[in-house]
Amino acid sequence: MIIVMKPQAAAEHITAVKNYIESNGLTAHLSEGTQVTIIGVVGDKSRLSTEHLALFSDVDRIVPVTESYKLANLKFHPDPTVVTVGCTQIGPHTRTIIAGPCAVESNDQLMLIAKAVKRSGATMLRGGAYKPRTSPYSFQGLEEEGLRYMQAAGKEYGLATICEVVSLEAIEAAVKYVDMLQIGARNMQNFILLKEAGRSGLPVLLKRGLCATIEEWLNAAEYIMAEGNPNVVLCERGIRTYETSTRNTLDLSAVPVLKEKTHLPVIVDPSHATGAYRYVPPMAKAAVACGADGLMIEVHNNPACALSDGPQSLNFEKFSHLTEELKPYWTLAGRN
Amino acid sequence: MIIVMKPQAAAEHITAVKNYIESNGLTAHLSEGTQVTIIGVVGDKSRLSTEHLALFSDVDRIVPVTESYKLANLKFHPDPTVVTVGCTQIGPHTRTIIAGPCAVESNDQLMLIAKAVKRSGATMLRGGAYKPRTSPYSFQGLEEEGLRYMQAAGKEYGLATICEVVSLEAIEAAVKYVDMLQIGARNMQNFILLKEAGRSGLPVLLKRGLCATIEEWLNAAEYIMAEGNPNVVLCERGIRTYETSTRNTLDLSAVPVLKEKTHLPVIVDPSHATGAYRYVPPMAKAAVACGADGLMIEVHNNPACALSDGPQSLNFEKFSHLTEELKPYWTLAGRN
Amino acid sequence: MIIVMKPQAAAEHITAVKNYIESNGLTAHLSEGTQVTIIGVVGDKSRLSTEHLALFSDVDRIVPVTESYKLANLKFHPDPTVVTVGCTQIGPHTRTIIAGPCAVESNDQLMLIAKAVKRSGATMLRGGAYKPRTSPYSFQGLEEEGLRYMQAAGKEYGLATICEVVSLEAIEAAVKYVDMLQIGARNMQNFILLKEAGRSGLPVLLKRGLCATIEEWLNAAEYIMAEGNPNVVLCERGIRTYETSTRNTLDLSAVPVLKEKTHLPVIVDPSHATGAYRYVPPMAKAAVACGADGLMIEVHNNPACALSDGPQSLNFEKFSHLTEELKPYWTLAGRN
Amino acid sequence: MIIVMKPQAAAEHITAVKNYIESNGLTAHLSEGTQVTIIGVVGDKSRLSTEHLALFSDVDRIVPVTESYKLANLKFHPDPTVVTVGCTQIGPHTRTIIAGPCAVESNDQLMLIAKAVKRSGATMLRGGAYKPRTSPYSFQGLEEEGLRYMQAAGKEYGLATICEVVSLEAIEAAVKYVDMLQIGARNMQNFILLKEAGRSGLPVLLKRGLCATIEEWLNAAEYIMAEGNPNVVLCERGIRTYETSTRNTLDLSAVPVLKEKTHLPVIVDPSHATGAYRYVPPMAKAAVACGADGLMIEVHNNPACALSDGPQSLNFEKFSHLTEELKPYWTLAGRN
Repeated sequence: MIIVMKPQAAAEHITAVKNYIESNGLTAHLSEGTQVTIIGVVGDKSRLSTEHLALFSDVDRIVPVTESYKLANLKFHPDPTVVTVGCTQIGPHTRTIIAGPCAVESNDQLMLIAKAVKRSGATMLRGGAYKPRTSPYSFQGLEEEGLRYMQAAGKEYGLATICEVVSLEAIEAAVKYVDMLQIGARNMQNFILLKEAGRSGLPVLLKRGLCATIEEWLNAAEYIMAEGNPNVVLCERGIRTYETSTRNTLDLSAVPVLKEKTHLPVIVDPSHATGAYRYVPPMAKAAVACGADGLMIEVHNNPACALSDGPQSLNFEKFSHLTEELKPYWTLAGRN
Repeated sequence: MIIVMKPQAAAEHITAVKNYIESNGLTAHLSEGTQVTIIGVVGDKSRLSTEHLALFSDVDRIVPVTESYKLANLKFHPDPTVVTVGCTQIGPHTRTIIAGPCAVESNDQLMLIAKAVKRSGATMLRGGAYKPRTSPYSFQGLEEEGLRYMQAAGKEYGLATICEVVSLEAIEAAVKYVDMLQIGARNMQNFILLKEAGRSGLPVLLKRGLCATIEEWLNAAEYIMAEGNPNVVLCERGIRTYETSTRNTLDLSAVPVLKEKTHLPVIVDPSHATGAYRYVPPMAKAAVACGADGLMIEVHNNPACALSDGPQSLNFEKFSHLTEELKPYWTLAGRN
Repeated sequence: MIIVMKPQAAAEHITAVKNYIESNGLTAHLSEGTQVTIIGVVGDKSRLSTEHLALFSDVDRIVPVTESYKLANLKFHPDPTVVTVGCTQIGPHTRTIIAGPCAVESNDQLMLIAKAVKRSGATMLRGGAYKPRTSPYSFQGLEEEGLRYMQAAGKEYGLATICEVVSLEAIEAAVKYVDMLQIGARNMQNFILLKEAGRSGLPVLLKRGLCATIEEWLNAAEYIMAEGNPNVVLCERGIRTYETSTRNTLDLSAVPVLKEKTHLPVIVDPSHATGAYRYVPPMAKAAVACGADGLMIEVHNNPACALSDGPQSLNFEKFSHLTEELKPYWTLAGRN
Repeated sequence: MIIVMKPQAAAEHITAVKNYIESNGLTAHLSEGTQVTIIGVVGDKSRLSTEHLALFSDVDRIVPVTESYKLANLKFHPDPTVVTVGCTQIGPHTRTIIAGPCAVESNDQLMLIAKAVKRSGATMLRGGAYKPRTSPYSFQGLEEEGLRYMQAAGKEYGLATICEVVSLEAIEAAVKYVDMLQIGARNMQNFILLKEAGRSGLPVLLKRGLCATIEEWLNAAEYIMAEGNPNVVLCERGIRTYETSTRNTLDLSAVPVLKEKTHLPVIVDPSHATGAYRYVPPMAKAAVACGADGLMIEVHNNPACALSDGPQSLNFEKFSHLTEELKPYWTLAGRN
């Protein structure tokens, strides 16, 4: 931690900061510049509150020099994590494709979709049973019934399964039926839910919040991991900007940034990010090209009749064509 | 709802859309332009899915013409709502000042603060007992013990009380001790929590999400109201932008915008928005000047030692000075 | 300047940075922490390039500790600047109201508007003669003819005049007719234009760019001032965010932030920021309440027929009502 | 154009809008809904001002249905444009790589870089001679001397050349020496400069503004094209968001969006977007994968000593490695 004092800071104010640091068992290194004095703090900074220090007289700024997340940090865990999900894995050598409908609508529908995505190379089946919707008057999901359909379809076609959870009750139901929990963008900082997911025993896919910084996202992963659950996968799904020609702005640069900061796998969801099926294939290829460990893609038997997010879903033919097109990109990325 | 067809849309595609609308019991009005055809949909649009329509061939865009929130909508409820909270009210003629520490730290501290803010004219006491923190390693609050201190301090000094809730468990505890629930920015789209708060029987203060549009915010209020709870107060607390000289960007224009769209009271929190105590007084005055029904302000007996958010807290002297300065602004705003 | 080294930085890499600093005639202070080493640089940092340093091995981050703008900086010029514009002034005790149409349309129109705004208390007349428009097919302004009308109307009614300039040619014309130049949001980082405006001899009103940080804005002011022109006034006019219910998001917190960083006057334009005349009065009052030195407000004789930006213009009656309403706010702000 | 009236709009207000439309020689189609009436306008909308209409009583919203740009619009020009630049081309089948230093520093430096990038497969040489810098105290470029070095290096190594221009004077100099003009992000809405570039006779590379929507960007291209210059290439270079781990947020989705809206070539600049050389290779591959017609990449002989933007420059070895890695990606994208 570095403390930057104001220009012409009074000597007694500099001393006060120094004394406070030392009274907490830490060491203060002073650098007196021509314009400003800076104080480096050496020792275990968890003993000090940045917020206290910011209020000392003549303190201009506090600059943290280490990250607040530890378990998710590549610095303390240099090897990439491989997360096992049911019969499959997500990690540095996998070609993970999680595909399925936005919302589970019926058993027949889900069987149809599971069969099609399996045939085209998907490794996991997604399907929403609990839907967080902006308006209370929109379709909210089949809940436990939807989870049962997911389990059945996963078994039938040998696909690992993932469902979004939105409450403790949903987690308790989901652990009985599916292989992985998803925390959605709107709940990325629902810390109670993160802790419960951490305690569930299942691997967790953590979507980035609509306006979350990468730092906040990694801290959210830390909440799950701090409960003893190391099996977290991060999913970039677009951030909110002023641009309106896509639903959100897919931040693909987050992929190489994350690869520098964390050992956790990173996947990309081009369906929710763009909101339009036409943009899914180019952005899926781009995601693999910049290093993503996998993709999450919405697929529907009849997008025109989907109960949720139809315009961004691929039909079976388009999905099959995309998985073919992706093959050389996976190979170029060293995934065999 | 208006459907804009693509230029040179095929006649049969236009007919297909028209037939679909009519088969759902609605009426389609066609306007054939020189460049594009547009179709106005007349009737109860809840019978139609925007998402289905977007996938019909040659459909370019769907433009909604009515809002999805109803109970919160000024159009259907033209008189401003007055929300009663314990011994006080929030509404078009009130001078609501909600003051107190970011986090409840001890009974003594809270009594001291409650006494000071009451003396300076606060109408409600705030204090966090459950703190949603970015890092799992930061102080997370005293929980039920903190709620008990809130109740005691409120009684002692005749202040209505409000606490943030982050889970069903926290709501169940809070209803026993305090007069109003707060849903924080990070939970604005935690729909499960919104529904539980709606069922609690207590009035709810709903903070705007860090990247929530006003439309989404009103839909979140609708979730609470749809459970039969009409007592919702909206609180603007800054949105996330690229500007870094304040913690967030206080969107004061939201106040007059909300006054056009909803009958619910609107208050402003300049402490969290700016993140710096020095900016709280000017922004508090500005909030009253542009029509806010009240303010939420962080006050601490010793900001330099606050366990949370010290840099944005006013000490007693500064808070007292501010409430004096605010008096003529309330009067100018017609609040007596 | 502070250089933060990576954890476990090699001793020779730390030495390399230290040697580079010292070989440039500066002093390096090392603080060796348990996790990281930081190096404080003491001396005239203009001799060093941040960018070179960022490329030394094991350098993690460079933290600047002083601002790059000097002439605009309150630290080096603690007294507030008063800018004289024709027959009026803008500064810490003024009630500046700059009013007029978005675009000058005809001599008659401008005379009518000038008369009305003068009667209601405006101190300056605005009117666009060169309009930067998003589409090349929109009305682009009357150019020099418009400037002549501005001069005539200013003389007739005793109002100082201001026009936006978009090119060297426009500046050369404007200096012949008006009292102050305006640099618009889209040209805030048109550095050539800033320099020319600096050399013009006229005071300059510098609008904030749509996505400019306060730091960049002050650096843009520095471009004008570095040409020997100290008469710069800053104008907040809204920044671009994801919120769409107002045209831009008026960042009123920028007013107190600027008052801490610079001695230059600050005015607020609620017309362009909100894009809707209904929001202009509440935001104008808020701007005065949080410390603005003045306002820029669009006024039109017949907003329904304005050639540009009609929806945000006040008619004469609404403007007159607003200036009356503002009087007690100016008084409360200590402006007499 | 569609006009949405307010709920319960008075019949005479609806009639007034209808009459106004018809008095301008256009046709008004009314659709009377149960909640609102909408009016479709048929005919040449350039005769009508959206802004006038927005002020009619009971008008709620105006929805444009056609784009304001025509020459850049794919609807009116369905074949992709190929832009010829000196000895090379940019278009749907090219593997354009524009490489070189951020700023031209000396003739020797530029010769060295030109030789290296040519050897590695670059098709064009970039180099800044006029640098728009945030601070007036930063290095501003060698100006005409830099242009001469560009010409010499281009000739020596058979590379087409491109330089940023920031003023009419710079355009006049540049046309004598280089093959293509660049309009930088900060000048994207400097409409005077766009027109001058349009009249220069040279092809123009137009970078996206830091906070420009795709719609505004295409309108800026229209300014150049409206001067009779069809040779415009668009360059995505990152937009401003709240995320700070990269300098800007590279909006790669803009590539497929632009391919739907315009026939102009689209290239991507990962160097400026990310601000860090480590992120350039993954984002360059992603750009090719999602359909970009080319790349603009900063290369420097000694990034640690670059006078501008060193941290984002590749050295020769890294650039050579990247161009090798890109080859199969170009092939997959159908570029031979």
